[in-house]
Amino acid sequence: MICDNLTVRDGILQFGGKNTLELAERYGTPLYVMDEDKIRANCRTYRTALADAFGPEAMPLYAGKAASFTKLIRIIKEEGLGLDVVSGGEIATALRAGFPMEHAYFHSNNKTDADIEYAIENGIGYFVADNREEVDAVNAIAARFGIRQKILLRLTPGIDPHTYAAVATGKVDSKFGSAIETGQAEDMVRHALSLANVDLAGFHCHVGSQVFDSDVFLRASEIMLGFIAQMRDRFGYTARILDLGGGYGVRYVESDPVIDIPANVALVGAFVKETCRALSIPLPAIRMEPGRSIVADAGLTLYTVGTVKRIPGYKNYVSVDGGMTDNPRFALYGSSYTVMNAGKMDQINDFSCSVVGRCCESGDIIQENVSLPSSVCRGDILAVATTGAYNYSMASNYNRIPRPPVLLISAEKNSETVAVRRETFRDVIALDED
Amino acid sequence: MICDNLTVRDGILQFGGKNTLELAERYGTPLYVMDEDKIRANCRTYRTALADAFGPEAMPLYAGKAASFTKLIRIIKEEGLGLDVVSGGEIATALRAGFPMEHAYFHSNNKTDADIEYAIENGIGYFVADNREEVDAVNAIAARFGIRQKILLRLTPGIDPHTYAAVATGKVDSKFGSAIETGQAEDMVRHALSLANVDLAGFHCHVGSQVFDSDVFLRASEIMLGFIAQMRDRFGYTARILDLGGGYGVRYVESDPVIDIPANVALVGAFVKETCRALSIPLPAIRMEPGRSIVADAGLTLYTVGTVKRIPGYKNYVSVDGGMTDNPRFALYGSSYTVMNAGKMDQINDFSCSVVGRCCESGDIIQENVSLPSSVCRGDILAVATTGAYNYSMASNYNRIPRPPVLLISAEKNSETVAVRRETFRDVIALDED
Repeated sequence: MICDNLTVRDGILQFGGKNTLELAERYGTPLYVMDEDKIRANCRTYRTALADAFGPEAMPLYAGKAASFTKLIRIIKEEGLGLDVVSGGEIATALRAGFPMEHAYFHSNNKTDADIEYAIENGIGYFVADNREEVDAVNAIAARFGIRQKILLRLTPGIDPHTYAAVATGKVDSKFGSAIETGQAEDMVRHALSLANVDLAGFHCHVGSQVFDSDVFLRASEIMLGFIAQMRDRFGYTARILDLGGGYGVRYVESDPVIDIPANVALVGAFVKETCRALSIPLPAIRMEPGRSIVADAGLTLYTVGTVKRIPGYKNYVSVDGGMTDNPRFALYGSSYTVMNAGKMDQINDFSCSVVGRCCESGDIIQENVSLPSSVCRGDILAVATTGAYNYSMASNYNRIPRPPVLLISAEKNSETVAVRRETFRDVIALDED
Repeated sequence: MICDNLTVRDGILQFGGKNTLELAERYGTPLYVMDEDKIRANCRTYRTALADAFGPEAMPLYAGKAASFTKLIRIIKEEGLGLDVVSGGEIATALRAGFPMEHAYFHSNNKTDADIEYAIENGIGYFVADNREEVDAVNAIAARFGIRQKILLRLTPGIDPHTYAAVATGKVDSKFGSAIETGQAEDMVRHALSLANVDLAGFHCHVGSQVFDSDVFLRASEIMLGFIAQMRDRFGYTARILDLGGGYGVRYVESDPVIDIPANVALVGAFVKETCRALSIPLPAIRMEPGRSIVADAGLTLYTVGTVKRIPGYKNYVSVDGGMTDNPRFALYGSSYTVMNAGKMDQINDFSCSVVGRCCESGDIIQENVSLPSSVCRGDILAVATTGAYNYSMASNYNRIPRPPVLLISAEKNSETVAVRRETFRDVIALDED
């Protein structure tokens, strides 16, 4: 199976030990299901791997943009990870979850003054400052609050991780950060060190999401550590923190490689320590920012089939009761997903089709070239795997379709808990004025 | 200017007669502004054009998926248009607006039983039935309600309108409708005529959105009228309604053609009447479904610049306080938009840049290759034109960013009315369980 928390019993797909047909029956569809045990296991994998590779000062930060809701952030807190937030809305979520804000890192290429104020007011640990305007704004607002605000500077090491163009962010040509290559990063350091109300704690880079090759992290850390050494030589300034961004790739389809995260992190750890020695700089406290690889394979979406359309000589279409409103990733990136007929796992998948959504839009496609049993029909439950990341977080009300709920399940606790309730028509029109 | 409701006074962009800098100041940014006078003018253009071309039985239906909120649907009602709804959520909106439901047409390739029940319960005028499963479901539910439900059958005439692949829906190979070419359309007619609780009122086709060529409507109506004649010959059944779908293209950039809608509709009218005569069938009541061309050029989005990033030897980036969360069309389709620096309209646009959003995602781009004045800086207000369609309706809370409000303005009434209020952090986390 594509994820190790998927099994089959009596021809029925089980997720995290739960019968998916029963979940669909009990909670309705479309339904996001998230496996709490898997989330916690993924958190522990990263915590242990980072501690082993970089020592006790290292900390993984969960990248909340992958999925952010109160109960999830509470799990992240319980597992002792830090948090990468990207907006006031994510900060509000962290606050509601009781997250210790000193371990929260505020990203984004464009923070408004209101955001900055809100973050400082609520004791944000670090700003990952993207640009000069932001450093100045943070300095000014911190001065008003009478504090010295810790910041990291976001730098672009000039690496193209050869992942999707849309999620490749370590290149010099990026809306994010300041480039080392152009000298702008050094200017930023000089500037930040000159300001009274910011405390430059270190540097951040992000070479892209869905990375399958540790080489990317090795090259990034080599450049970043070299830059740290340069800044020590230039300004007598030694960075305390190096944030290498996120994150390792996850498996959407069988052809995606399996990543051994501890082994990969250990490789990066050995390289970083060796490079620090060679450069005679102290080992900085390392941060990594897994988001997708914490929650993606902890998620499964269940849909009900509405229509099966056979167009002789052309193609077959299976329509489900969700679509680009709850998972826009095929529409946005042509992303791959594994689709299964949850109640017919013992049948042969001999029917080739496009699985499409219910939106009035041709591009509303979950996945093309899917193989399902030819008996697929109205009322069947389809399961789409690896939907824990960038599905609920990217959901919309396009076509005024309400967003599905998120159900947290745990085999260990033997629990089923609604973490985000199903949106109603009333919710959808709640912002309309009469 | 790209839209005729845009003007410049003292170097400041005016929209529908309002000073855009003052609107940004008064209501904050990002801000969707919609020009009520323009919406009404567009409605009247279509009403008059259809009445002139097809007689008093013709009616344009506003395609709510382009933008649906209570005050907008109330305008549509006041202007005497019918309504194309695609979900329970859009029906709920219509109900709240007091829309006469007998003029509402329920589209979608996949209606759930719950949707069908909700629509019948609330007196929907017509189902635009997409497929056999739906016809059967409508028949069964109508039987329970003891009514005979009017339906149109959605057919695919087999036309590729050569518009964007994602919005081309008249082809045989489509998730929508039943193909005439394969004989499946005829089967559907036979089936629908055999059922006791559906009243087959006619046929629907939709050859695609953003159509600039009336030839597409001529070819579609030729095929559809031919099919009507065939069904009369085959079953002695004469369709009362022919719905030709939507809609004429709108101008996003200066290079887009200007469409003379009355002239184009008149062309289709003459052709349809002539074809009916030739086929000896009565002129059906014609429907068209403009959505985009009712609201697109009635919309303008205002943003505040946060960051201007100059990367020597690479590219320049201007970041605004919105992005793919309020306008995902560049991310989804690479759509073109016209971007202006609202307060610097008298300056030369000599600075080439990408205008990007504030989301933590490289693909979060409003538009590439934009020319702005080189003085562009934090605090400037940027205006993006022609955003009235498929912007608010497609908005998401990605990155937990609250959705902007919609401000309705009218020069005629000298009014500014918040039609959709600004979402708050509290709203964004409202569905989270604690």
